[in-house]
Amino acid sequence: MSKTIALIQGASRGVGLQFCRTLLARESLVHVIATCRSPDTASDLLALKNNQNVSDRLNILQVNVENESHIKVAAELVEDQYGRVDLLVNCSGILHPSGRGETSLKDVTLEGLQNTCSINAFGPLLMGKHFGKLLMKGSGSFGVQSENSKEQHNGILINISAKVGSITDNGLGGWYSYRLSKSALNMATKNLSIELGRGKNKVICVSLHPGTVDTDLSRPYHKNVKTLFSTEESVSKLLNVIDSLSLNDSGKFYTYDRQLLPF
Amino acid sequence: MSKTIALIQGASRGVGLQFCRTLLARESLVHVIATCRSPDTASDLLALKNNQNVSDRLNILQVNVENESHIKVAAELVEDQYGRVDLLVNCSGILHPSGRGETSLKDVTLEGLQNTCSINAFGPLLMGKHFGKLLMKGSGSFGVQSENSKEQHNGILINISAKVGSITDNGLGGWYSYRLSKSALNMATKNLSIELGRGKNKVICVSLHPGTVDTDLSRPYHKNVKTLFSTEESVSKLLNVIDSLSLNDSGKFYTYDRQLLPF
Repeated sequence: MSKTIALIQGASRGVGLQFCRTLLARESLVHVIATCRSPDTASDLLALKNNQNVSDRLNILQVNVENESHIKVAAELVEDQYGRVDLLVNCSGILHPSGRGETSLKDVTLEGLQNTCSINAFGPLLMGKHFGKLLMKGSGSFGVQSENSKEQHNGILINISAKVGSITDNGLGGWYSYRLSKSALNMATKNLSIELGRGKNKVICVSLHPGTVDTDLSRPYHKNVKTLFSTEESVSKLLNVIDSLSLNDSGKFYTYDRQLLPF
Repeated sequence: MSKTIALIQGASRGVGLQFCRTLLARESLVHVIATCRSPDTASDLLALKNNQNVSDRLNILQVNVENESHIKVAAELVEDQYGRVDLLVNCSGILHPSGRGETSLKDVTLEGLQNTCSINAFGPLLMGKHFGKLLMKGSGSFGVQSENSKEQHNGILINISAKVGSITDNGLGGWYSYRLSKSALNMATKNLSIELGRGKNKVICVSLHPGTVDTDLSRPYHKNVKTLFSTEESVSKLLNVIDSLSLNDSGKFYTYDRQLLPF
């Protein structure tokens, strides 16, 4: 069995950090490229790197997704060192620069919309732009392969979206910047699934809703949440979904328990 | 019969300009507030203003939707002069700063995404923020009123969206910035429908697909289009849809021929 290459974007905390931990613990052949805005201050990620069992399988790179040159340089480094990516998970996300979602229109600002969409939607799309060709060289080791060779995939690209990004499902309103950004991200997923699914070497692209997870992002809202997942629970469920994906799923939007969400 | 107040945002050309023309021609009691980025160079709009039959019913204001202070000042002027808005149509839109939609990921840039989303999605949302209270004072003269007084509306807010902004319907990919912006705009419509539909005075908020219209935006693509509408045809159809709207339609996404589109 050969090694597998997973790249986790937005890996310094929350769901992204947990993806690194869980993947590295899962089996000894997974190599993780963890990207984050400020590796120097990513204390939890640096602590993970200091764990002897995983240190040579964890590669930390600086990527601020609002800076396309960072993404380009990271893709060149990954190409040189690994030659491919089997799984890319875009985890970066903010609720709003203030840390609180807008409760009403009076809180909406152009700057809040722009910052939130850049981090939550445009950055992940630019990751797809620069890592697409490496995912097309993926080994197909994540997900379920079809018996039909024409229906087989190489890499998998996951965008961590959110159920509140479903326009159809939106019954409460508010959280303007976050909701708009996740709708835009879901369109990015759909467009990526088309462009990266067109050639001989195909990439599965899927949006996933992680549930409400005990992270910094959701902390101000925990008292209103019926089911709050630990990051371990959420990532375990998300990896179960990822392990079940085939090309037929590409372009779709699933919950942590593999229910299809409407856009 | 009392006068009605329509505000057309992005009125210097294309669908926006035609909304001004058609509304002013429709009946003598419609007053139109036409906003655009650069009134001084909006030659077609200025020519319309010089038409003696409409000049005292057309008010041109400068609004660059990427500048929230413009929107705020315009809302204050409109409040002083008219006290309410019965219909607001957000028409501003670009395909991409380059004038061409991205055919593949290699054309995608952060700047293109940001500019397109600011004009197509964030600006219209900020219009909703500042004009929401004036729409809540609308006379209810556009659309169809329910016999049930609790189901009656005041103003109507229309976001000119596009079928290519439907994530569900997207089968071709490409046009990344435009597609993402229209998905975000559709979420803005849904969120606005919730917040502006909550109180005693309600605003119907709807996204409309105008068809492919003979405008500067679509010009590079005309040879591939099966049905190309003139701006007159498109706006005539869109006004038929607007005239048919009731509160039950709020938050929805319709074509020019009133077919419901999935998000």
